[in-house]
Amino acid sequence: MPTIVVEVMPKAELLDPQGKAVSGALTRLGKPEFASVRIGKRFEVTVEGEVTNAMLAEVRELAVDMFSNSVIEDVVSVTVAEPVEAQ
Amino acid sequence: MPTIVVEVMPKAELLDPQGKAVSGALTRLGKPEFASVRIGKRFEVTVEGEVTNAMLAEVRELAVDMFSNSVIEDVVSVTVAEPVEAQ
Repeated sequence: MPTIVVEVMPKAELLDPQGKAVSGALTRLGKPEFASVRIGKRFEVTVEGEVTNAMLAEVRELAVDMFSNSVIEDVVSVTVAEPVEAQ
Repeated sequence: MPTIVVEVMPKAELLDPQGKAVSGALTRLGKPEFASVRIGKRFEVTVEGEVTNAMLAEVRELAVDMFSNSVIEDVVSVTVAEPVEAQ
């Protein structure tokens, strides 16, 4: 079954404590080449049948209204992908 | 600055309560065309200077050892991307 992948990240102007923690751990491990880490979410929406343009538009709307909190998060991308299990 | 994107998803054989909750909400909203939803993580690792192959290999290793819990999660992809802020 086809999958629509939605990617959501915390807004650039907000602190991301999870990401900061990972970034700090990398510095302590002696890896200063990694300047920062931010952690967001990745949704895999599995679709019955074909992915139509209307369906993709609907997921784009859902991504903004339901999958993300627009006060603190940005929807980075909405793309169609084959499910990982099918590989 | 270039960014390395790491994507981590819960293993297919495991329940994903967060994803199940979203999936249930979609069904209640009258959208049965979306068969299932799974929710994973997306890391953006910002790198000082150029992304070398060695650095990419290092992030691949970190993705498995540190960014994900290999008991319950799979690393789906490790790719180089321009940062969102630069768009």
